[in-house]
Amino acid sequence: MDDCVFCSIVNKTLDKELLYEDDKVVVFKDILPKAPVHLLIVSKEHILSINHIQDSQEDLAGHMINIARKMALKYGVYETGYRLMFNVGKDGGQVIPHLHLHLLGGKFLEG
Amino acid sequence: MDDCVFCSIVNKTLDKELLYEDDKVVVFKDILPKAPVHLLIVSKEHILSINHIQDSQEDLAGHMINIARKMALKYGVYETGYRLMFNVGKDGGQVIPHLHLHLLGGKFLEG
Repeated sequence: MDDCVFCSIVNKTLDKELLYEDDKVVVFKDILPKAPVHLLIVSKEHILSINHIQDSQEDLAGHMINIARKMALKYGVYETGYRLMFNVGKDGGQVIPHLHLHLLGGKFLEG
Repeated sequence: MDDCVFCSIVNKTLDKELLYEDDKVVVFKDILPKAPVHLLIVSKEHILSINHIQDSQEDLAGHMINIARKMALKYGVYETGYRLMFNVGKDGGQVIPHLHLHLLGGKFLEG
């Protein structure tokens, strides 16, 4: 998708420091962090949201969660705790229509 | 785990209406709902948290996400939007030490 900012990061046409990359996902820092640690685990494939995954893509969602767990360890919030969040659509507060998982930690998270 | 409330629901020693059940998960309503729709997708296996899943259990986390998506459709928040959340440990606000995914929807979710 030419006009998708996350695709531009995945395709490296937009310069952004990647903290992790494999064949399915990239990880980078949220530009508007809501916590001391706020990373995004982003699918390489342009999928609009969790609403748009297929049964056959369960493994992708699971992989995103598992990579988030490893990032929690690497970025020092594994012991103190953290939150993993998929926002979907308008009520969910999803801003970018490209599948991504928020990892938040480094402080006590309300709500 | 004899003293785990979620295991008691899974094992049906504690009476709780199940909205969905398969070989890996059960789904029921949160007893302290934070939104008009607030469901918990709970692993049948007693795993303490996302910190305690193994690489080989990626598929379980993915399955929980995929079932949450189907519950969003069934409970009328698929179009309006929703949030999926794993709270992990103290800072994450995890209350019950048994793997579960929150599905929240039915209103605009802040933060």
